Amino acid sequence: MDIEQQSHIVWQGSSWRLRVDEVRLPDGERFERGIVEHPGAVVLIPLVEVEDGYMVLMIRQYRAAVEESILELPAGTKGWGEDWLVCAQRELREETGYRAGKLTSLGQFWPAPGFSSELMTLYVARELAHDPLPADVDEEIEVVPMALAEVVAMAWDGRLQDGKSIIGILRLARHLQLTML
Amino acid sequence: MDIEQQSHIVWQGSSWRLRVDEVRLPDGERFERGIVEHPGAVVLIPLVEVEDGYMVLMIRQYRAAVEESILELPAGTKGWGEDWLVCAQRELREETGYRAGKLTSLGQFWPAPGFSSELMTLYVARELAHDPLPADVDEEIEVVPMALAEVVAMAWDGRLQDGKSIIGILRLARHLQLTML
Repeated sequence: MDIEQQSHIVWQGSSWRLRVDEVRLPDGERFERGIVEHPGAVVLIPLVEVEDGYMVLMIRQYRAAVEESILELPAGTKGWGEDWLVCAQRELREETGYRAGKLTSLGQFWPAPGFSSELMTLYVARELAHDPLPADVDEEIEVVPMALAEVVAMAWDGRLQDGKSIIGILRLARHLQLTML
Repeated sequence: MDIEQQSHIVWQGSSWRLRVDEVRLPDGERFERGIVEHPGAVVLIPLVEVEDGYMVLMIRQYRAAVEESILELPAGTKGWGEDWLVCAQRELREETGYRAGKLTSLGQFWPAPGFSSELMTLYVARELAHDPLPADVDEEIEVVPMALAEVVAMAWDGRLQDGKSIIGILRLARHLQLTML
């Protein structure tokens, strides 16, 4: 529908940048549209089989955007052009201290396509072995091992408030045939 | 962990703005952190009971951020300070042409808390009556009525790629006790 558009980069951060489009519509009306140009991100579901079911390594970290410490799955932004699996392994080691022997994709989604190009890929991470990498300087992360059944209940009832984690946990439960209605 | 921070607004759009924080860490390292300051949004699940189950009014629209026409639930950004239910009714009328006799919340979540303050509230919209409002000038929206069972299957298997819609549809299925493992 746009008939004219000029774009410029307004801010360039270390992982994403803001592009602003100046749009003119057919009726002559003009407006600006902000687009977060994002290289994509991985979301990890570190899974451990235990006696009576499964455990997931959740993390807790302070998020300046929402001014809260939140419970979420480990995740991280890809470098521009970085391979998905390389990024997945790196973020897993940085955030949980473990490397995965096996990574299984549970699909991709856009968390905020109304204004952001970010595409997220979900991975179940299994066969975990201790192999830490230093965390990013701006991150203080606490690893929180939880029973999968408990996290699934939280994804259903709203106690889990992070979108990528809700999707990841429910897709995993489905994958394991454990949706627990 | 931050010991010093200066913030400024880098871009102000019609619905959200970009704030950039200049952060200095205890070790003296400096970096910039971009935050999308967002007033929040509603996500609507317009639901119609039919002979053999339920129908959902999905929409299809072009999203410049991902450069694709995507299938999603109707949704829209709140005005700063706008009431959630007022916003829900307005967006439903603008995007589907219907008003809801009954709106039921299915909870809230952050779609992208890594860089955005946006909080989304999910509503099931029932008792629909034709009562359209003009659409936003920059939106061209096609209403796509679909069988709920089909959309639930798409949320599980990855054909539905919009995060808010995956969460909305699965929460609805759970709400109706229809998770269909």
